[in-house]
This record gives sequence, C-alpha cells and structure tokens, in this order.
Amino acid sequence: MEFSSKLIESAVNEFSKLPGIGKKTALRLVLHLLKQEENFTTDIAQSLIDMRQNIKYCRKCHNISDEEICNICKSHKRDNSIICLVEDTRDVLAIENTSQYNGLYHVLGGIISPIEGIGPEDLTIDSLMERVSSSDSEVKEIIFGLSPTMEGDTTAFYISKKVKQLGVKTSTIARGIPIGGELEYADEITLGRSIVSRTAYE
Amino acid sequence: MEFSSKLIESAVNEFSKLPGIGKKTALRLVLHLLKQEENFTTDIAQSLIDMRQNIKYCRKCHNISDEEICNICKSHKRDNSIICLVEDTRDVLAIENTSQYNGLYHVLGGIISPIEGIGPEDLTIDSLMERVSSSDSEVKEIIFGLSPTMEGDTTAFYISKKVKQLGVKTSTIARGIPIGGELEYADEITLGRSIVSRTAYE
Repeated sequence: MEFSSKLIESAVNEFSKLPGIGKKTALRLVLHLLKQEENFTTDIAQSLIDMRQNIKYCRKCHNISDEEICNICKSHKRDNSIICLVEDTRDVLAIENTSQYNGLYHVLGGIISPIEGIGPEDLTIDSLMERVSSSDSEVKEIIFGLSPTMEGDTTAFYISKKVKQLGVKTSTIARGIPIGGELEYADEITLGRSIVSRTAYE
Repeated sequence: MEFSSKLIESAVNEFSKLPGIGKKTALRLVLHLLKQEENFTTDIAQSLIDMRQNIKYCRKCHNISDEEICNICKSHKRDNSIICLVEDTRDVLAIENTSQYNGLYHVLGGIISPIEGIGPEDLTIDSLMERVSSSDSEVKEIIFGLSPTMEGDTTAFYISKKVKQLGVKTSTIARGIPIGGELEYADEITLGRSIVSRTAYE
C-alpha cells in the first residue's frame, strides 16, 4: 500500500505492529481517528503511555496492579490458604468473573514451552516457592489453573513435584465436557477423561 | 469485567472506543503492550498524536496529505482533464493500487445519506463545482468511483445533474461480474446489469 501522507503511513505501520491488526484494519482505525475530535486520539495515546509507564506488578502474586501489593493480596476477605496458579492476568480476570473463587493467585507470566524457549527460570516459580515455604505462610493448597495443553500439563507437573516436597496439597481445575456442550460433539480425549475423573453424586 | 488496575481499565476503555475492537480484544492488545519494551508503546502513541495533530487535507482534492496540496494534485505526470470522484481516502488508495488510473481525484468525505443525516452540503461538492467551473480548469470528464449502493447512486445522480450544466462528460466505474467470480453465484441485479451494459468486442 502506498500512502499519500507519511504521517498516515507511520501511524498505520505502528498500529499494525499490534497482534491481530493488519495494514487494512490499521488504516480503517487511523481514518476513524481522523474523523473524530483531536482529543479522542490524544486520550487514547495518553492512556496507553500512562499505563505502560506507571503499571506495577504485585510483589507477592505478580498480577498487574497500581500499587506494590495488589488488591487481592491485600484483602482481608480472601482465603490465604489457597493459591491458584495461572499463566497471566487474563486468567485472573476470567476466574474472578466467575465469583466462585475466594483464594489468592500466583501469576506465572507464561508456561514452560521449549519450542518458544521458555524455561522454568523465565517464570515466577522461585517466587512461588518462597511464598509457600516462608515461615508465615498459611498456604495449604495450590490449584493449577492452567490450560489443558501439553505445555500447561508440563508446567503443572514440574511445579507440583517441587511443591509436594513442602507438604502442600495440589489440584487442578476440572477438565471435562463444557456446560451446555453436546456429548456427541466432544472430542475423544475430553470425553474419555471426563469418564475417568467422573464426579460422584453425594 | 473488573480490573485489578485503574491504569489497565482506562487503557482498555480507550482502546475499545475504536471500531471493531471490543473489551476482550482491547485487553489482549493492552497485555501485549505490557509484554513489550516501553518505547514500543510510546512509539505507537506518539505516531497517533503526530498524525492527528499535523495531518492536512489537500486544498484541491481534499485527500489526506502532509502539505497544502497533495502529491497527486501537484504531479506533472497526471492527466488534469479527468477527475475521479470518491467517497474517502481509502478509495483513492484502492484505485492507486490498481495502477490503471492516471487522472486526478476529488474526495467527497462521505456520500449523501438521509438516514445518517448527511446532505450535499456536508460533502465537498461546492469545492468540486469551483474546481470544474474555474477559468483555468482543464477538466473534461468526471468519473464516479462510488459504491454501487442506493446512497452511492443518489450522490452520483445529484452531482451529475449539477456537473452536466457545465458541459463536462460524466461516467461511472463499470458494474458487473467480478473477475474470477462464478456467473451462477452472481445476484440477479448485478447479472442483469452486466447484460444491459455489456462491452462490445472491438
């Protein structure tokens, strides 16, 4: 694409560096910005700069936070004996939105993936071990809230081995047929697993 | 969605004001920005601000430009006797990319649409009339490069009536079966029209 303006070209190029945004979408966004008031654009740009420059990560759980310790770790209403281990902030948001969990979190910042060159030392595993083994720790259980993929399972296996030495219970979120899903359309592995780890009626 | 950080919340809200970007996509983009170096974000933000604050519109054709008169209007290699009338800058880009047109453009900035409250006075029609009727005008033909919709046809009809009084030829880009399209899947109106306005072999 050849642009009649260097300013447009540069804005389109910058926009299209974002994941899932190609040149055409970038151009559509840029032309939309041009149709709006000037402060529409400056507001967006300023909030991105503010966010990037001032964001902090909670010292305890590594979740994104505006302060040194995040609201969840600070709260007195949360159950300090359970930690849910997740890959990134989006997972914390997703679990919080269910309103079914009242414990703490620990954000790994990724999962072990040899293909992408991510090893255990790139994640916040050491910090988790410190958190669990510290003298004032109340942690009794760690829930693995990781995706049911090869990488997720590898990560869970690696960490559970380390954690078990400390006498902490581990568990994983249930895998099975999604609520509302049709049994006949479920893949074999999921269906097989949902039979093996069936839930007993009480 | 509830966020653990006001900074994230504000960045997501700003991003999701853009067309086609919802809260989930906005969050994905924001988290991507957080994973990159700080200047990745500031570069994007700065280029948007620069673009919005410094962009100009060509005084002659109203296309987006870095200067008072755009490169196309300024060029000595273009045919000054033809003007292609288009809705917005994207259409100029699309036609330029074909390398099949060597005339000038005139960007209307929209099309007449009573439903959206856009009337002839909101478009650059007056400026077009001035351009065509001025004493040093070389314009002999105006091509309507508008979308084949109700609004596009209305706009073309309105302008062609005005322009004809000045003794300028008008034409419209061909409508018919797209190259590579299957005849049997073409809609009736397009197929009908493609028969009526068939092209004679010479």
